[in-house]
Amino acid sequence: MSHHILVLHGPNLNLLGTREPEIYGTTTLEDINQRLQQKAKDLSLELKIFQSNHEGALVDFLHENRAWAQGILINPGALTHYGYSLHDAILSVEKPAVEVHLSNIFAREEWRRKSVLSPACNGIISGFGVNSYLLGLEAVSKILEKT
Amino acid sequence: MSHHILVLHGPNLNLLGTREPEIYGTTTLEDINQRLQQKAKDLSLELKIFQSNHEGALVDFLHENRAWAQGILINPGALTHYGYSLHDAILSVEKPAVEVHLSNIFAREEWRRKSVLSPACNGIISGFGVNSYLLGLEAVSKILEKT
Amino acid sequence: MSHHILVLHGPNLNLLGTREPEIYGTTTLEDINQRLQQKAKDLSLELKIFQSNHEGALVDFLHENRAWAQGILINPGALTHYGYSLHDAILSVEKPAVEVHLSNIFAREEWRRKSVLSPACNGIISGFGVNSYLLGLEAVSKILEKT
Amino acid sequence: MSHHILVLHGPNLNLLGTREPEIYGTTTLEDINQRLQQKAKDLSLELKIFQSNHEGALVDFLHENRAWAQGILINPGALTHYGYSLHDAILSVEKPAVEVHLSNIFAREEWRRKSVLSPACNGIISGFGVNSYLLGLEAVSKILEKT
Amino acid sequence: MSHHILVLHGPNLNLLGTREPEIYGTTTLEDINQRLQQKAKDLSLELKIFQSNHEGALVDFLHENRAWAQGILINPGALTHYGYSLHDAILSVEKPAVEVHLSNIFAREEWRRKSVLSPACNGIISGFGVNSYLLGLEAVSKILEKT
Amino acid sequence: MSHHILVLHGPNLNLLGTREPEIYGTTTLEDINQRLQQKAKDLSLELKIFQSNHEGALVDFLHENRAWAQGILINPGALTHYGYSLHDAILSVEKPAVEVHLSNIFAREEWRRKSVLSPACNGIISGFGVNSYLLGLEAVSKILEKT
Amino acid sequence: MSHHILVLHGPNLNLLGTREPEIYGTTTLEDINQRLQQKAKDLSLELKIFQSNHEGALVDFLHENRAWAQGILINPGALTHYGYSLHDAILSVEKPAVEVHLSNIFAREEWRRKSVLSPACNGIISGFGVNSYLLGLEAVSKILEKT
Amino acid sequence: MSHHILVLHGPNLNLLGTREPEIYGTTTLEDINQRLQQKAKDLSLELKIFQSNHEGALVDFLHENRAWAQGILINPGALTHYGYSLHDAILSVEKPAVEVHLSNIFAREEWRRKSVLSPACNGIISGFGVNSYLLGLEAVSKILEKT
Amino acid sequence: MSHHILVLHGPNLNLLGTREPEIYGTTTLEDINQRLQQKAKDLSLELKIFQSNHEGALVDFLHENRAWAQGILINPGALTHYGYSLHDAILSVEKPAVEVHLSNIFAREEWRRKSVLSPACNGIISGFGVNSYLLGLEAVSKILEKT
Amino acid sequence: MSHHILVLHGPNLNLLGTREPEIYGTTTLEDINQRLQQKAKDLSLELKIFQSNHEGALVDFLHENRAWAQGILINPGALTHYGYSLHDAILSVEKPAVEVHLSNIFAREEWRRKSVLSPACNGIISGFGVNSYLLGLEAVSKILEKT
Amino acid sequence: MSHHILVLHGPNLNLLGTREPEIYGTTTLEDINQRLQQKAKDLSLELKIFQSNHEGALVDFLHENRAWAQGILINPGALTHYGYSLHDAILSVEKPAVEVHLSNIFAREEWRRKSVLSPACNGIISGFGVNSYLLGLEAVSKILEKT
Amino acid sequence: MSHHILVLHGPNLNLLGTREPEIYGTTTLEDINQRLQQKAKDLSLELKIFQSNHEGALVDFLHENRAWAQGILINPGALTHYGYSLHDAILSVEKPAVEVHLSNIFAREEWRRKSVLSPACNGIISGFGVNSYLLGLEAVSKILEKT
Repeated sequence: MSHHILVLHGPNLNLLGTREPEIYGTTTLEDINQRLQQKAKDLSLELKIFQSNHEGALVDFLHENRAWAQGILINPGALTHYGYSLHDAILSVEKPAVEVHLSNIFAREEWRRKSVLSPACNGIISGFGVNSYLLGLEAVSKILEKT
Repeated sequence: MSHHILVLHGPNLNLLGTREPEIYGTTTLEDINQRLQQKAKDLSLELKIFQSNHEGALVDFLHENRAWAQGILINPGALTHYGYSLHDAILSVEKPAVEVHLSNIFAREEWRRKSVLSPACNGIISGFGVNSYLLGLEAVSKILEKT
Repeated sequence: MSHHILVLHGPNLNLLGTREPEIYGTTTLEDINQRLQQKAKDLSLELKIFQSNHEGALVDFLHENRAWAQGILINPGALTHYGYSLHDAILSVEKPAVEVHLSNIFAREEWRRKSVLSPACNGIISGFGVNSYLLGLEAVSKILEKT
Repeated sequence: MSHHILVLHGPNLNLLGTREPEIYGTTTLEDINQRLQQKAKDLSLELKIFQSNHEGALVDFLHENRAWAQGILINPGALTHYGYSLHDAILSVEKPAVEVHLSNIFAREEWRRKSVLSPACNGIISGFGVNSYLLGLEAVSKILEKT
Repeated sequence: MSHHILVLHGPNLNLLGTREPEIYGTTTLEDINQRLQQKAKDLSLELKIFQSNHEGALVDFLHENRAWAQGILINPGALTHYGYSLHDAILSVEKPAVEVHLSNIFAREEWRRKSVLSPACNGIISGFGVNSYLLGLEAVSKILEKT
Repeated sequence: MSHHILVLHGPNLNLLGTREPEIYGTTTLEDINQRLQQKAKDLSLELKIFQSNHEGALVDFLHENRAWAQGILINPGALTHYGYSLHDAILSVEKPAVEVHLSNIFAREEWRRKSVLSPACNGIISGFGVNSYLLGLEAVSKILEKT
Repeated sequence: MSHHILVLHGPNLNLLGTREPEIYGTTTLEDINQRLQQKAKDLSLELKIFQSNHEGALVDFLHENRAWAQGILINPGALTHYGYSLHDAILSVEKPAVEVHLSNIFAREEWRRKSVLSPACNGIISGFGVNSYLLGLEAVSKILEKT
Repeated sequence: MSHHILVLHGPNLNLLGTREPEIYGTTTLEDINQRLQQKAKDLSLELKIFQSNHEGALVDFLHENRAWAQGILINPGALTHYGYSLHDAILSVEKPAVEVHLSNIFAREEWRRKSVLSPACNGIISGFGVNSYLLGLEAVSKILEKT
Repeated sequence: MSHHILVLHGPNLNLLGTREPEIYGTTTLEDINQRLQQKAKDLSLELKIFQSNHEGALVDFLHENRAWAQGILINPGALTHYGYSLHDAILSVEKPAVEVHLSNIFAREEWRRKSVLSPACNGIISGFGVNSYLLGLEAVSKILEKT
Repeated sequence: MSHHILVLHGPNLNLLGTREPEIYGTTTLEDINQRLQQKAKDLSLELKIFQSNHEGALVDFLHENRAWAQGILINPGALTHYGYSLHDAILSVEKPAVEVHLSNIFAREEWRRKSVLSPACNGIISGFGVNSYLLGLEAVSKILEKT
Repeated sequence: MSHHILVLHGPNLNLLGTREPEIYGTTTLEDINQRLQQKAKDLSLELKIFQSNHEGALVDFLHENRAWAQGILINPGALTHYGYSLHDAILSVEKPAVEVHLSNIFAREEWRRKSVLSPACNGIISGFGVNSYLLGLEAVSKILEKT
Repeated sequence: MSHHILVLHGPNLNLLGTREPEIYGTTTLEDINQRLQQKAKDLSLELKIFQSNHEGALVDFLHENRAWAQGILINPGALTHYGYSLHDAILSVEKPAVEVHLSNIFAREEWRRKSVLSPACNGIISGFGVNSYLLGLEAVSKILEKT
């Protein structure tokens, strides 16, 4: 039986592939979602995917899918650095959560080097472009399968 | 004649009673609202109650009810620590405001120990669970009655 | 049967009503104590009230009344900001403690915005003048009655 | 042919003219928008004006008008101090951006003295009331005309 | 009748147009002064312009022209970051003052992101090259005309 | 008619002349008091002198002599660096206060370079040995005589 | 043709499986190495694996295998927080490098929350136990294959 | 001939054995004093033992016994972290001083990890329960015997 | 025989009596100099008085009068906070130096609360208006007379 | 039956008795080891003693003797201030550990006042020369004997 | 053909040899200049030497000799720590610059350990007395000769 | 008779000429050593040269050659920023020491701008590539010859 995973994309990720490609690459969010779905099939996972530029909407989405969800994959975008409400929302789901970033946030501007969400997550994967998502999905799957 | 009080619940408070009960207790937001209404009746107060996970929606609510409101009771949730827009919105109402917290934020993680909203409020009540709300309602009532 | 509450007033609070009334109001400490006694009667509490300008005397008072006390209500005055001995003394009583302040210390000088006592207390009520004490007494009563 | 400029007003600016007039003056947002439109006509600019109390909505607005926009004029309100998502959204438009403030934010409370948006903007104009907007419009026009 | 404006150029601005053109552009100080004079004529302003690499000389200039001056336009150069004497000298003139910078100082090295002069000025315009001066002159004019 | 001045010596000053003479000199507290009395006579001042190693006792002394006192001369000893209760007690007297130190506290260990009492005093005299007291008495006298 | 990957285990990782299992799990380093070899086979990678408690030895190992290596997988252990020589050694290899941690270092003691190696690496994977290594190997493989 | 040692116990140590036994153990202060006396006999030391919750009283005690004392053994309790008057009083005795703590203060809350008294003492012994005192007595004895 | 004292007035002090009288009073620098000369006569001191808005000129003045000078009285104005060259120049004279301030710099803006000159001076007198100078002259005289 | 204790001497301690005797005394490491062996005999302890200038070697030594060891006595030398690998190695032994220092590190340069090893040790003894070691051995013995 | 080098001596260096010889030695500035001229002859360099206590004059000197200069040798004196205008002036010359100090500024007071000029210079030589200058001249010569 | 100099190269310097040539140039360590030997001949110095990536080995080398050495030339590589053991080892040699760096460490990443070794050295030379070594050798020679 497949596990249920919430996939959240934070602010500005809808523009992926068009915005600052020298940092974020040329893959679009649509591409990422397709690759995630494909990978989910391989891993016997079922995904609900959501993107929003509103912190509140991301919080709402987590709340509304609490019962269904068994794990979380989240790229919080810039909310990484100040989204304390999102931090608490992740905690409220009480399921394994994996934080991913396309770029290596620890090698960029000073303010990007700190994630306020990390203490609410099981782990972090940062710096591998689209693969951060795919590896993250694998990570959440492994936590659920306890392998 | 009764005073008009806005009651605001910030992000994640809708999950109260289910989320992390060891910190926040088992009372639901519905319970709190009922107890607030009951207490309001005792104090001859009229309440408008609003919960949102969106900072913008809380700001909108304050703006829309500026004319009606004579006092504010607010539990800002995690916005306590970075909600400067909410800070300015409280100031814009120009009415007494009381900040409440279920847990004692000054005895938790470092980042929870500072409220950016406090300078916009008359006072703070933190650490008494549901009673923080009830005492806060009493406090705002006393400010309005100048007792 | 009534609960036993220690009420402590820290340094300079003996001058209340005469000192800087624009910040602290015109009520005297005697007035506050009378209103506390009256409220205590309503709440079926028995109070032992003590004021001192000596941190050591406040610590002694807590020690001497440890067996009798079931709760603590304390306005630490300026000791709020450096009274670590008082912090440890509150812990040593091992009873619920409520910290109160007449003014909203979080809206004043930078050094007044941090309480070193808070981690030793159940909660804090700050900014409501005399009512901070009365609400605080109610708070400690509710903790004891688990309501 | 006229240039296309997005004008964004951040949280609480809808209350302009009524909120804290001793800091922000008595001109309403409507007045400002009219004066901006008038000035835009003089400068052969076409404006799309938007106000929101939601950071997410401001980000959405920037995204939706990316193709149309040739420049940005933004008063971020309190988001100035923590709106990292808005920072990234401005970058994503990849057009000249001018940050304006009614008051001189560098002469106010400590936390208002730092803008997290500045590194994403070409320049800043702060402290001249309504004229901050008008000068800002002129500034963005000059950047586009390279004069 | 025209208003009297002091225009001050701080250290190294005499080299403008030759020094680090990738940051400061190719316009010379002479060019700027001519454009300022032209703009002054349009705005019915009379200018006294002064450049010095000596903080003391800038202070002297402000003192000597206190009676004549009705407004100040100043690009303090690197004194922006440590010229406390200049800060006090601006205050001593007790007239509206506008601080301008060619580059966006808030997007450069950490030490350039703080102006010690800002609290002594009405406002700041930073990042628009020569136009920072011209917009600044307009700003000081508008303050004097209360428009 | 003579003015009434409270003279307070803080912790460890009773040992003056015997303790660390290389820093504090060889004059005893008795000597200082005699020289203060002599100077007081010259200045038509009446002194009440008090030394204590207890912050609380210094606070009590200030309270008890509030009605009599017209000015304060205080060497707070090490309380300079953490005696916030003493700070508030000085404010509570609401009379001119002069802070004195035997050594130049701003040229010693880092922690001695900050006085938490200074904001409650009219001024400070530090570094002149016994003469800090005598100059301080003159200073408080001049404030009272408004010369 | 297979890619060549250096796998480095830093100080104390030789004790894995026996040391503090509540944080690091019960898998031994031998187990990890076997699973890495197995995964390497799947990914057509060739591994050279090295563990040392000496920062210098890890640096030496990187130097000696510079010609052979096409990628690096490193769990620096506690050197994460101060191993600047290792940072420079990774740079000196001039090949993709992936930093992995068994535990989520960003959710532990303050001093563990900062990696001085991150700016020298392509990315980081932290918090997934043994899987951090396996995902890391996959990540380095994908970088080399540019997928 | 025996050496004379002052033994000082700071605030809250009178409650030892009853207060927070999980941190401080179950030995009472009386027990400690008896074991110290016994050890003193072994080491040919004569002790004067004093406990107070008043910093001033501890300072007074040091002053009054300056002539008699040849060494100091002190557990300053919470005064460790802010007792600058006590710091100066120890210096004023000009005899070897040993600072002891029951718990390992460097492994507790952040504010407990710094002793303001250490620079006035010869050495520190922290973390061994009652044995901190006994080892401390041995240490002061050895300093006096220069062994 | 009279002692020789250099009196230095730093930046903006030439405007005294006209600039911000609510902070600095209405006495002019001329008045102060006359009162200093009068006091000098009483104390058998000979003065050389110098004011400049140039740090370099103050340094030059100290150098040129090194042979003649036996003491220094200096109000450094805003150079107090960054005039490290002046600091070194005072040291180079190798004579007693007294730092004076009209206002109590320790009760003003944060940046005014630190003097970088203090470590080069014997002592400081701050907060007594013109009397700061007169008391300072007395102080330097007493140091020279060793009384 | 005797307990087994590992004794570790960190970098530069091999030079003891020759290096900077004014700080570290004239006793050689050989002397210390002899006195430790003698003391060990008295306490029925068996010692394995090791000195190295290599952090890695100290870590190796701890690992290799984990099974044998029942307690640790360590003077980490300068590794005290940055030896996080050593910190983790001490934890990995999971036996009582006592940190000792010849000098009082809390009364020296700022950077020597913080030990990163302390949180991994039971306690610390600092400032008593050779006796720090002997008292430390006694301390570890008492922990093992639970006396 | 010889290279042209500007040699700048900052504030207080004119007193060299007389001021604080224990720190700066007994060589006068005249001696240094002679030795520099002699060394310049050996290295086929032509020097223009300038000393001033005015930051502005040092900036002016750099500007006036920009065309002639091919390299800069500068001992900025205390301007090292705050001379941002000098920093920008060095950049404006766009020639190799070498910063020298007589004493080892990194082993003195905290505030002397940071040079704000270093980022504008090719390198720094500090701590070798007169030889810092001579080595610095050699360094600038080698940069110009690319050896 | 020639002086004996120890030359130490820290971590990663063995790769010189191949690693990041845009920062460190193309000269190999072998080249540097040859040029140092040649220069040593000119200066009548005898060198012992040592490179290691192990801090411990550098410390060992200093210890082993203490008797022979009369001076030290050291490029500590990344140990510059955390090598406190090396700091103490340099002190233990009690001979003049010169710290050199190829690049200007004060113009690079924030963490590279501070040397923990500087307080143990006579001086520093940074930023001149290979010439930093040659000038450093000259510097140590001059200290030994007291010229």
